[in-house]
Order: sequence, then C-alpha cells, then structure tokens
Amino acid sequence: MLIPTLAIVGVGLIGGSIALAARSRRVARRIIGVGPDLEHARHQGMLDEWHHELQPAVRDADVVVVCTPVDQIAKVACEAVACGRPDTLVTDVGSTKAVIVNNLISQLREGSCFVGGHPLAGSEKSGPQFADVRLFENRLIVLTPHRWFAADAVDRAAAFWRSLGGRVMVMTPEEHDKAVALTSHLPHLVAAALAAMLPAELHELAASGFRDTTRVAGGDPELWSSIFCQNHLSIAEGLTRLQNLLSQFGNALNPEESTVPDRATICDLLTRAKRNHDALGS
Amino acid sequence: MLIPTLAIVGVGLIGGSIALAARSRRVARRIIGVGPDLEHARHQGMLDEWHHELQPAVRDADVVVVCTPVDQIAKVACEAVACGRPDTLVTDVGSTKAVIVNNLISQLREGSCFVGGHPLAGSEKSGPQFADVRLFENRLIVLTPHRWFAADAVDRAAAFWRSLGGRVMVMTPEEHDKAVALTSHLPHLVAAALAAMLPAELHELAASGFRDTTRVAGGDPELWSSIFCQNHLSIAEGLTRLQNLLSQFGNALNPEESTVPDRATICDLLTRAKRNHDALGS
Repeated sequence: MLIPTLAIVGVGLIGGSIALAARSRRVARRIIGVGPDLEHARHQGMLDEWHHELQPAVRDADVVVVCTPVDQIAKVACEAVACGRPDTLVTDVGSTKAVIVNNLISQLREGSCFVGGHPLAGSEKSGPQFADVRLFENRLIVLTPHRWFAADAVDRAAAFWRSLGGRVMVMTPEEHDKAVALTSHLPHLVAAALAAMLPAELHELAASGFRDTTRVAGGDPELWSSIFCQNHLSIAEGLTRLQNLLSQFGNALNPEESTVPDRATICDLLTRAKRNHDALGS
Repeated sequence: MLIPTLAIVGVGLIGGSIALAARSRRVARRIIGVGPDLEHARHQGMLDEWHHELQPAVRDADVVVVCTPVDQIAKVACEAVACGRPDTLVTDVGSTKAVIVNNLISQLREGSCFVGGHPLAGSEKSGPQFADVRLFENRLIVLTPHRWFAADAVDRAAAFWRSLGGRVMVMTPEEHDKAVALTSHLPHLVAAALAAMLPAELHELAASGFRDTTRVAGGDPELWSSIFCQNHLSIAEGLTRLQNLLSQFGNALNPEESTVPDRATICDLLTRAKRNHDALGS
C-alpha cells in the first residue's frame, strides 16, 4: 500500500508512532502533521509538512487519522471530511467509539468516507517523545464500521493498519465500548483507586507488583476523564460486577460468623483468576 | 561478609535467587539446599549439597533462610533453631510477619537467634527456573526484629541481605503486615478480581494495560491463599477503603440525580492517582 499523502491530526504518542511506522514501512509518500505544538515531531523528522490548522493539511490528504483526545475527535473528523476530497478516508484512534460514531452519523452526510478505529496499543506515557515505530506490530486494531458511511472505508482503513503491522478486528461501536470497559477502562479505574489510596509513607514499600498493577494510573487525567465520560455506563456496569466480586473476597477474608478466614473461597477466586491470566499468554 | 555454610530451605524463585546471588557475590562458602525436589536447583549448580530433611542441612549451618510457603515457615524455623547451633541465625522471607513471629515467640526460648524478614522482590512466577541472580539488587528487605529474640540477629540478617545487594528497613511485624496489605496483598486481590471477571471472548482484546494490571494474578493460588489468610484483617480493612473509593468513582460515572457523568470528580480521583504514581518514580 502506498498513500500519497497521509495527514495525522494530533502528533502525540499514537500519532507519532503512526508517523514513524508509516515512514519506516514506506506506507506514505508524504506525512503531514497537524497540531498546536509540533516542535518535537518535526525535530524527530516524523513529518514532511506541518500545520496548526486542519484545512491546509487535509485538503490534499488521501488518508486522515484523527489522534486527538476523544472529546475532540468527532468535531475534528467532521471538519476533516468537510475539508477533504470526497474520497479522502477519515478515521480515528479514539479509545471510545459509540459517542464519536453516533455524533458523526448525525453530522455527516450518508456515504461519507469515515470509519471509527481504535488500536489496542499505547502506554501510560503521552507525547511524541514516547512514539514507537513498532507500537502497532502484531497489535489488534478494532474498526467499527457503520452502514451510514462509505462501504469501502473499513477496507481501506484495514489495509492501512495492516500495512503498519497491525491485525484488524471489526466490531460495532457498542460492542467495542462494552469490551474495552472491561479490558481497559475498568482496570484503569481500579489501578487509579489503588494508587490514590497509597499513603506517602508507604511509597518506599511499593515493589514491582504494586508498580505493575498501577502502571496505567500514570495516564493523563484529562484524557482519561474524557474516555471515562464517553463510556460511563459500560464502565459503571463493569464496576458493579467488580464490586460484587470484591465483596465476595471481603466476606471470605473476614466472615461475619467466624474469626477464621474462608480459605477455600479465597483459593477458588484466585484459581479462577490464574486460569484467565494464564489463558492470556505472556 | 563470608558465611561458611548457608542453608536455604525451599529452593524456589526466592530461595534459588538467594543461592545464585550468594554464589556470585561470594557471600557463602558452602550452600546447602533443603526441599522435596531439588533437581532443577542442582542442575543449575546453585547448590553444593542438598537434603530432603532439615536436620542434616541445618546442623552445620551458620545462616538458615526459610523460603517455604508462609504457612510452613513457623514450623520449619522452629525446627531449624532446634537443630542448629546456638549461634545459627535463622531468618525467613515470608510475605506476612505477625502470625509467623508471634508463633515463634510462643515456641522458641528467649534469646533464640531468629529474625523475621521479607524481601520486597519476586514475580508472579514460581520455581528455581525463574531464579534471578540480581533479584535483590537495590531492593528493599524488611526485617521485623522482636526483643524476645537474640539482639544481634537483626544486624546479622541485615549484613547478609546487604551483601546480596539489598537495602534493609526495620519495622515491627504488625507495621509490616499493615503496609504490605496496601502495597502488595490488596493489589493482588484486585488484580485477581479483574482477571477472574474477564470473559473468554474478550481475551483477545486484553492489551498491555490489562496484562500489566493483572500480572500478579498469575501467582500460585495456594501460596497466595496462605498469605491472604495470615494477613486477612489488614487486607479486609484496606479492601473496605478501596470499595469506598470505587463507590465514589461509581457515583461519579453514573450519578443518581443526572444522566451526565460528574467529570470533575472523576478527574480529581485520576489526578490524585497520577500524583502518587509519579511520586513512586519509574
């Protein structure tokens, strides 16, 4: 695949990694970045051109990837469709899909060349200085096509992500959001709660187990607040289930009717957990 | 420091790492392993001698480190004190301390050369094949001396751990248990709950964030059940606080009085979490 002109709106960790991978794999002839501060990305040689404004960047683009925070994606994608050619593919990398896609269905005309996307790759770090040319290698990219939009958008986006090394899975926006509530948003929330409740005097005692379990709590609070708000009902539903499971643990640790913990129940919960952990592979 | 004879009871990940580090740093002249199956440790050249029984191993030992599962430590340490010389130092690596130390106070005579210990190092893996010669380098080792035991036990154990590359911190057994409830046991419980509730059809969508957050859930359920049971009240107390914090998140995600999530509260919780995360350093 060769894209004559690729525009990346928001050149942070994900946008920067797309630029690096597209360059290294010769997926794009020309890479244009859009954003308020492209100093680092320019110095890294990620971009051939850069603009503060969307219009001059998108005008000639064949593919536009919107990598802004989730609460700006719908607005930017809408403008990109308006500024681009009719066959310019517009897609995004947002961690939520239903709010964004439904917003665009209501704003874009039928047959517009848009498809929602979410690469399941990233880090708790932000910024192009953490971009990684191999970020998408063998990683899953979820695409969430909708019949309101051009039928070939999903195939073109799939070809694009495969050319960056990714594997593509297609889901509805709603399926996506329910899934990532459990695989990403709820773990993030729990990691944040654990990190938030650690008193300063115990920081020195936090070893690798604590650090791994709470690593994602290093993510940007503003970015993640937007994600949480866009997927709030699915996360709240998952949280209720998690709290029920934690209450089972709590009852087993300190049973009302006994001074002795219920070892069998604890071991059963830990065994179920390990079975799932091991099934994930390394 | 040179220990003429070091005995390690239970040569798994921790015991094996002690053997490797003691050998590589020339901390011990002779290393004896005790355990039911020492095949791997012998093949790795970790040990100079090996026994299934405690007595022949401990008889000549200057230092005995008990690295069995926590529910066997008190019994083994008691036997080791009985079989060793009066000046044989007996210590352990258990993840809980109060139950073990109190048990030994009730069984050992005053002035016995014992001190409880817990290296804050490890992995979700088990077995000597995962032993790591550098496991203790710059890692914190908590020692929990008690005035019932010989006064020089803590200094000798501290010198031993420093010679393996570790840093030593002294706490009471109860302080230790309350601290690790928050830094290790509660994170383990939460990671297990997250792993346990992931449906099989979503395994493919679990990316690095999920894997990091739930890594410790790969730990051995039997070992961890024993740890949870020995520290059940402190963990239950921490769990109650965690559930209160999760309820705050839940109320903010899906407020009773509104269809719109409470973004300010979510962002505040995530900001507190990130502050603690960042304060831990990398």
